[in-house]
Order: sequence, then C-alpha cells, then structure tokens
Amino acid sequence: MPRETVSHEEGAIYEFTPDLDPIATVDSGTQITIETRDSLDGAVQTDEDLIESVPEEVNAATGPIAVSGAEPGDVLAVEIEAVRLAEDRGRVVTIDGFGLLDGREEIEAPRTTVTPVADDTSPDAEAVTDTVIEFGDHEVAVDPCIGTIGVAPASESYTTLVPHDHGGNLDTTDVSAGNTIYFPVFQDGAMLAMGDSKAAMADGEMCGTGAEIATDIDVTVAVIDGDDVAVDLDRPLIETAETWKTVASAETMEAACELANLDAIDLLAAEHGFDPTEAYMFSSLVGGLEISQVVDPLVTVRNAIPKTHCRGPF
Amino acid sequence: MPRETVSHEEGAIYEFTPDLDPIATVDSGTQITIETRDSLDGAVQTDEDLIESVPEEVNAATGPIAVSGAEPGDVLAVEIEAVRLAEDRGRVVTIDGFGLLDGREEIEAPRTTVTPVADDTSPDAEAVTDTVIEFGDHEVAVDPCIGTIGVAPASESYTTLVPHDHGGNLDTTDVSAGNTIYFPVFQDGAMLAMGDSKAAMADGEMCGTGAEIATDIDVTVAVIDGDDVAVDLDRPLIETAETWKTVASAETMEAACELANLDAIDLLAAEHGFDPTEAYMFSSLVGGLEISQVVDPLVTVRNAIPKTHCRGPF
Repeated sequence: MPRETVSHEEGAIYEFTPDLDPIATVDSGTQITIETRDSLDGAVQTDEDLIESVPEEVNAATGPIAVSGAEPGDVLAVEIEAVRLAEDRGRVVTIDGFGLLDGREEIEAPRTTVTPVADDTSPDAEAVTDTVIEFGDHEVAVDPCIGTIGVAPASESYTTLVPHDHGGNLDTTDVSAGNTIYFPVFQDGAMLAMGDSKAAMADGEMCGTGAEIATDIDVTVAVIDGDDVAVDLDRPLIETAETWKTVASAETMEAACELANLDAIDLLAAEHGFDPTEAYMFSSLVGGLEISQVVDPLVTVRNAIPKTHCRGPF
Repeated sequence: MPRETVSHEEGAIYEFTPDLDPIATVDSGTQITIETRDSLDGAVQTDEDLIESVPEEVNAATGPIAVSGAEPGDVLAVEIEAVRLAEDRGRVVTIDGFGLLDGREEIEAPRTTVTPVADDTSPDAEAVTDTVIEFGDHEVAVDPCIGTIGVAPASESYTTLVPHDHGGNLDTTDVSAGNTIYFPVFQDGAMLAMGDSKAAMADGEMCGTGAEIATDIDVTVAVIDGDDVAVDLDRPLIETAETWKTVASAETMEAACELANLDAIDLLAAEHGFDPTEAYMFSSLVGGLEISQVVDPLVTVRNAIPKTHCRGPF
C-alpha cells in the first residue's frame, strides 16, 4: 500500500465535532505522512511576535482523515513512526490568562522566546537526537511530541484546545515516535486529526506551551474490531515499549487521576481476573500516575502499568 | 566515625512538632542505620487482619535524631545508601474514608492483602533486586522507598500522616537508595525521623498504601551551612543520579504543582540568571511535573529538572 501524504494545506480543523467531513480517506493499515503547522499558525517568528499576533484560532489539527471500516465501538490504532521537525525554529510563549503560574506578579505575559533548531554541540547533552533547540544560550535536546490528536467525539464538540475522551489537546509527551495511541471510535471512519507538535515539552507544560513547531508525522493507522478488544476503551490509551498508559482528562487533577486509575483497574481486572478492589490495590504497587498537562481547559493525567504486569487489551 | 544504629524500639514519633526531644545525637557526616517498623505497627500479619487491628496511631517514624550543629537556615542532607527489608512480608490495605477511589461502590474497604517476600522466579521481571513480593500469584519487584521522613517543623505540628514543608508523609518513590533528600532546618539539631517504608509503591499510592514493611535504612547525614546554599530551601529537595526534584505538598494537586514549579524556577533562575518568566518558560521544556501521592491529607507533587540543565544549589 503506498504511503499517503495529508497536509494542513488540504485541510485542518479547530474543533473536533461528531460530524466531521474527511479531507482524505484511507484503508486500515495505511502509512500516512501528516504535515502539521505549528500551534500558533506560523504567526510567531521572532521574540517580538506575541500571542496577539496569532489569528483568532490556534491549534490547527491536520485532517480529518477517515479510516475505512472504522465503526463506533471499534478502536483506532495510530502507530507513530516519526515526528520530524519541519521548520527551523520553535517558539515558547506565555499568555495572559493561561498557564500554571498565570496571574503571578513575577510572571510576564505575553512574552515569546523563539527557540532556533541547531546541531547539538554539547557532548553530554541528554541526546534523543543530535538536534537541539536553543533557548538563549541553552541547548535543549529535541524530543518531539504531538500535542493535539484525536477523533470525532460521540456527541459533544470540543475545540482543539480541549482534551477529552476523544483525545484532542492531550499535550502528552508519550504521544511520540515509537509509541502507539489507541482511540475509541465514536463515528464512522473515526476521523483522525492531529497537530500542535512540540520540539520539546516538559510533563506539565507549565507555561502553557512547549516549543511549538511544524512537523511531518509518519503514522500507520489500523482499525481494531471492537469484538477483539478485552476492555471497552472509554478514553485514549498509549502503548510504549515498556508500558500501557491510560490517559484521562477532567476539570481537576484529582478527577483525572480517578478516571486514569479506573481505566488502569479495568485493564488489570480483565487480564488477571482481579476483582476491582484487588486491581486497585495492585495498581498501588506498580507503575503509577503521571502528569501530562496542567494548563489546558481540562487537565490530563496518565496511569502507567508496566507490560511485565499487563499484556494489554489487544 | 563509627556507624550508629537507631531503632524504633528506642523511640518513634507520631507527630512532627517544633520542640522534639532527640533519642540520639550524631555529628554531621555520621553514617546511621535506622530501624523502622511497618506503618501499621506490626498489627497486620494476615489477610484477616484489617486496618481496625491497628492501635490508634499509624506511621511511626523512628527518631528524632539530632544532628549536632544544624541550625535554622541550614540544610540537612540525608544520603540514602540502602533500604533493606527487615521482615518476611509487606501488606497492602484499603481503608474506609481513605484512598483515591474511596467511597466507590465497587471498592471494598477495609481489606488487606499480605504480600510475602520471596525470591524472584521470573526471568524477565523488572528486577531492581532479585527479591519480589507476592501479590496473590503475581510477583512484584522489590524497590523499597521511605514513606515518611522529615525534620522538626518551624511552628506548626503535623502528624506523621501529613506531608508538608518539613517533609513528613511524602510517600515519594524517589526517597530510596541511591538518592539524597535535603530538608530545610527549622530547629536546632534538625531532628530527623523516618519510617513508613514500602517494599514497592506506585507513584500516586492510589489505594492509600504501598506494600508497607519494616526496614533497616542506611543513611549518612550532613549539615550544609545555609550560607553555602544558592537558593533558600522552603521545602524538601531530592537529588537522584540524573535529576533534581523539588517536592511540594498542598491541599490540591494544582496548588502542589504551583509550589513545585515555583521551587524549580528558583533553582533555574539562581543558576542561569534567568528572570522568573524565562525560568518558567524553560521549565516548560525540560523534565517536568511528577506525582508522588494523591491520597494523604495533603497531596504531594515533584518537579524534576535534569542535571544536564541544573547543577543544583549546593
């Protein structure tokens, strides 16, 4: 099957709605390169370009892409093979009214720091690649992730700034090359869209952004029949080399932790025959809760389970 | 200097108060073995022993140990060399009124699962040691951590169930062999105490406990003069092989994240000459927020900064 290419120039959404129209349709098993623009739509190119430079909407998600045969109750697997930087700079911004420390006197918002992409000159950098972004005099290893990725939701609509059960603005560092993210399918064709990549981001995304950057993303999409899944997925699930990570978004971190832990308990109970209390106690011993982001309209938390203790639902 | 031994049989506290009386006094630089009993005071030995078996108080912290020369404004460094299991079983419990999923119909509380210590029989276990605990048929790698560790607080008193700026019930997996935890000194002698170890614990400690177990803990304590510290420590700080981790406890996870991030910003600003906004933006690119526990009367969060980007304040 030839590799398909889908560019933001063909279409991008600013809202995940139940009734999205696809800009491309592919078969299950197709390799796709998805070209994304940066979350600020290219409007911030220097330190003098503040968030006010950005047109009304942010977080364009390239797509939607319909996957033939995907039906409600199925699962869409998105295997991420590569997230390549597609421009020579990222940008970190603060935004008035946004961010973990928003409103504190010592924090200036809006402000922009452009982070040029450069070769790594440090012999002992925490190198994931041999490319870095420069934050002033500091080199930060490039370790790209996809900030916004999701499918058409069941009934509500969500702007691409919001994370929820359909995915969306998950801002989760594990949505990166080498990992697979699984979504519940709510609508025919699933309607995958993604964008808002970062050249680097800390867990938490405290100031409200990572180093926002345009990327070319290689993925393979596959439909998993709902009957072949051991646990009904209510929310996204990430598979890394060594772990399964449930992903949950909610109004508070406490509520997100509850959902992420309940999903982890479902996985453990289905696989090991644990009753819910056993699974809960076991979940308190291995892996654990992780923070994705604490700044979006809903916050996002993960619960990691090592594969040594969970083969997963597929 | 000979190694000192301090046992819970000589003294243990259930409350960190400003005016603690030491059961031992050591010099800065002393190696100490601290013997701790399990958080449930040995009262839970079988699956039939529920939390109601436990005497009134839980979370005994062996100590306090005065460190000569430690004065308010100094920092106490506690280098953790080993946390050895000192009995043949741990125990995981649920407690009515406690835990992330407390009050849910499907969760039974109280319940106890005793986790015997055994040899690892699995060739591909995520072995940190060659010892495991058994949770039913499942083997979980032993990876001990100290749940409660702290010093005499400035003015308030805190039971050993509560984490705060003095440490206390931090329930943080990084408080483990190979790492160093630093505390602000609030009172003469610092008055170190610790206990509540776990044979294994997930980040989050969702059900309210890890595998609670008695341990023998080898540490070296050292007083760092406050004048030699680049940043005033308001809260505990952990040094691992590769990171510095600020540690903050608060009523909500959001509030704890803010404190942990503010402390991280202080470290970055002091070292790199960043203004607070620059440090905030930089903190959004490297390391990130981590969850310690979401179940104690205050919750605890960390902000990790890779040592490649921070040499630390000492």
